[in-house]
Amino acid sequence: MSKPKMFEKPIGVKDYLPDAVKKLRHIEREALACMASWGYEQIITPTMEFYDTVGVASSTSDQKLYKLLNNRGTTLVLRSDMTAPIARVVSSLLKESSFPLRLSYHSNVFRSIEEEAGREAEFFQTGVELVGDSSAEADAEVVALAIASLKAAGVERFKIAIGHVGFLNGLLGEALQDRKEEQELLKACLLGRDHVGYREQLSKLSLEEPVRRELESILRLRGGTEICDQAMQLRGGETAKEAINHLCETWEVLQAYGVCEHVLIDLTMIGDFSYYTGMTFEGYAADLGFPVVSGGRYDNLLSQFGRPAPATGFALKTTRILELLGAEDNAREERTLIAYDSAGRSEALAEAQRLRGLGISVVTERVEHSESLGDIRGGFDFSYKGLSYTALQLYVAEKGGQAR
Amino acid sequence: MSKPKMFEKPIGVKDYLPDAVKKLRHIEREALACMASWGYEQIITPTMEFYDTVGVASSTSDQKLYKLLNNRGTTLVLRSDMTAPIARVVSSLLKESSFPLRLSYHSNVFRSIEEEAGREAEFFQTGVELVGDSSAEADAEVVALAIASLKAAGVERFKIAIGHVGFLNGLLGEALQDRKEEQELLKACLLGRDHVGYREQLSKLSLEEPVRRELESILRLRGGTEICDQAMQLRGGETAKEAINHLCETWEVLQAYGVCEHVLIDLTMIGDFSYYTGMTFEGYAADLGFPVVSGGRYDNLLSQFGRPAPATGFALKTTRILELLGAEDNAREERTLIAYDSAGRSEALAEAQRLRGLGISVVTERVEHSESLGDIRGGFDFSYKGLSYTALQLYVAEKGGQAR
Repeated sequence: MSKPKMFEKPIGVKDYLPDAVKKLRHIEREALACMASWGYEQIITPTMEFYDTVGVASSTSDQKLYKLLNNRGTTLVLRSDMTAPIARVVSSLLKESSFPLRLSYHSNVFRSIEEEAGREAEFFQTGVELVGDSSAEADAEVVALAIASLKAAGVERFKIAIGHVGFLNGLLGEALQDRKEEQELLKACLLGRDHVGYREQLSKLSLEEPVRRELESILRLRGGTEICDQAMQLRGGETAKEAINHLCETWEVLQAYGVCEHVLIDLTMIGDFSYYTGMTFEGYAADLGFPVVSGGRYDNLLSQFGRPAPATGFALKTTRILELLGAEDNAREERTLIAYDSAGRSEALAEAQRLRGLGISVVTERVEHSESLGDIRGGFDFSYKGLSYTALQLYVAEKGGQAR
Repeated sequence: MSKPKMFEKPIGVKDYLPDAVKKLRHIEREALACMASWGYEQIITPTMEFYDTVGVASSTSDQKLYKLLNNRGTTLVLRSDMTAPIARVVSSLLKESSFPLRLSYHSNVFRSIEEEAGREAEFFQTGVELVGDSSAEADAEVVALAIASLKAAGVERFKIAIGHVGFLNGLLGEALQDRKEEQELLKACLLGRDHVGYREQLSKLSLEEPVRRELESILRLRGGTEICDQAMQLRGGETAKEAINHLCETWEVLQAYGVCEHVLIDLTMIGDFSYYTGMTFEGYAADLGFPVVSGGRYDNLLSQFGRPAPATGFALKTTRILELLGAEDNAREERTLIAYDSAGRSEALAEAQRLRGLGISVVTERVEHSESLGDIRGGFDFSYKGLSYTALQLYVAEKGGQAR
C-alpha cells in the first residue's frame, strides 16, 4: 500500500476534540463515582499483556487481538477487555485479599477490525468485577449497579435483558444430545438475534415434532417473571431448571432493588463472551441498535490464573454512550480574556492568578495596542481567535486597567 | 524463552491498585483543572498511530518505538509522546481553528526498554501544547503553567531549569565550525550532565586556549538573570545572542508571574527531544534525581504535518510525581456495611440507595444470621472481609433493623 499521508491516522481509531472529551470525561467521572458509592475500588492495569496469559484467557478471538513483540521476542497483546487482566491481578497482587472483591475500571481496549466494518479498533469501557460471590444476590447487585451507572452517565431510557447460558445449554443439550454442531448452529442464530434463521435451522433438523415446537417456543420467552414459570414447563433437564431457578432468584433481588421496570428476562439471549458460565445481561438504550452495557457471570476464568473463584461483572460501552448523549447542554463556561501590554503585565498576570484561584478560566494575551483587539473592547460574551469569552479585562496603556 | 507464568505481566509495565489509583487520579484531576483554568482544553488521541507519520516525527529513537502491524500490513506504533499526535490533530481536524491553540492532555505513552534498566515501558504524562505563538510571553506562560500544575498536583519543593538550544548551538557552532561530530560529543556529555566527561572531551580537542576556557566556563552558567549578562560576553555569534535575549525576555515575563523563586537559568541544559528549537526546560523536585516535568519550544514540528506554526509545551511526568507524593494523607473514607437477611432485604437495599445518594459508599451483604458477622456487630470503625468501615447497619431477623 502507499505511504499514509502525514495527517492520517489508522482506520478504526479516533481523535476526541475538547467538546467530546468533556462529555467522555463526564460519563467516566459519574459512572466511576456511582461504582465507588457501591464500594467498588478502581484499578488500572497495563495496556500490554502477555499473549500466552491474558491474551489466550480473554474472550476475544485470536484474529481480533492486536499482537506485538517485545525486545525478547515474546508475543504481547493490547488488552481486548479488562476482565482477564483483573483476573490476573486478583490472582497475583491481590491474592491475599479476602473475597468478595469489588473492583472498578475505566479503560481503553483494543480489537483488530476489518477495515470495511466501520467498527472501532480502540474504545473505552467503564465497568466492575465482583469476585468471590456465587449468589443470586451478587448477580442482582451487578445488574442493579449497571442500571445505576447508566443513569449516572446520563442514559435515561434503556432496558436490561437478562438471561442464563445454562438454560439454552440445558435445553439444546437435552433435545440434541451428542449433536454439538447442530446446537452451535442454533446458538449462532440466537447470538445474531436471527430468529428467521433459527426457525429455518430448526425445520431442517431431524427432531420429533413436540421437541421442535418446544425449541421454537423459546423465541417467545421474553418478558417478566412469568417467563420463568413458562420455561419451567419445558424439558430442559437439571441444567436448564437450575438456570431458571437462579434467574428467578436474581429477579426477586432486583425487585428489592426496585429496578425491575428496567429489566426483562430474555431466555434466548446468549452472552457473546465465551467465558460466561451463568447469568448474562445486555442493556439497550431506546432507539439504539447496539448494547450500551453487557455483563455476566464467569465462574471458570479465575481458575485459569490459579485462584479459582466465582465472579460476575459488566462493562459499560462508554464510547457508544458518548454517541448516544448527543450535544451537551452547553452550559456556558465562564472564561475571561485578559489583554495587556508590557507596562500592564505584572498587574494583568496577578489578576489572572486571582481569577484562576476562583475557578474561572483565564486566557492572557499580550497586545501592542488595544486597537488590535478589534471590536471586542469592553464587551461581554464575545468571540476572539476562535474561543468564546464571558468577560474582558484590559491592562493596556491607552485605556488603563478596566474592571470587569 | 519459556512461556510466561499465568500471573506474570510484561517487564516495564505496572498494575495500579486502588490506593495508587486514588493518588494518580488526584494528580490527573488537579493538574487538568489547573490547565483548564489557564484556558487549555483537553483532547484525547488514539494509542496507535502510523509509524510513517507520528512515529517518524516523534522525538523517540526508532528502537524505542513499539511497532505492530495492522490488517493491511501497515506498520503502526504505540504513541511515545503526545506532542507529535497533537501536531497531527492541529494540522487535520483542527486545521480551521485559529491560533493560538491551547490544548491539554492526560495520557499513557510507550517506550520500548532494555529489560535490565528498570525503566517503565508505559507511563502517564499530563501536559499542554500552546500552538501558534512564538513570543517569549508564550514560553513564559508554559513555564508558569508547569509551575502551577506541579503545585496543583501536590509537588511542593522543586526547581525549573530553563535553557535555550540556540545558545549551545551558536556557541559550539562558532567554536567548532564544520566539526559537527565534535560538537555532538560535547552535547552528549551535557545531555548526560557529565561535566567531567565534557572537560575531558574539551581537553582532547584542538582549540585555542581562550576558546577552550570559554567553552569550559559555560559549565558555571547556572543561576539567575545575571547568567544572561555573563553569557552575552561570550563569542557565540548571532544565534547564541538571540537565544540569550529570548531567555532574558522570558525571565522578565516570569518575574511578572511572580514565580522566579522556582526558576533558574541553566545554559548547559539540552532538552532531550530532538525537535526542540528554542527555550527548553526541566523541573526537578527536591531529593529526586529525575525530572518531574520537561518541555520546550518546537517550531519546526508542525510544518512536517503541513501546517507550519511555532509551538511550545510541556509534559508532567505523572507516574514519577506519583512516586514522589508517597503515602496519601489517608483521609478516612466513610463506608457503611449493610447486612441483611431475606426478610430485611427490601428495607436494607432501599437504605443503601438512600445513603449512596448522599455520597456515602455502601457495601451490602446478605447473611443468614447476624452471628456470621462475628464481633463487628454494633461497631464503628471495624474491618470486615478485608475492607474498613465506619458504620454498620443490620437488617437481620434476630436483631431487627438497627439505626446507625
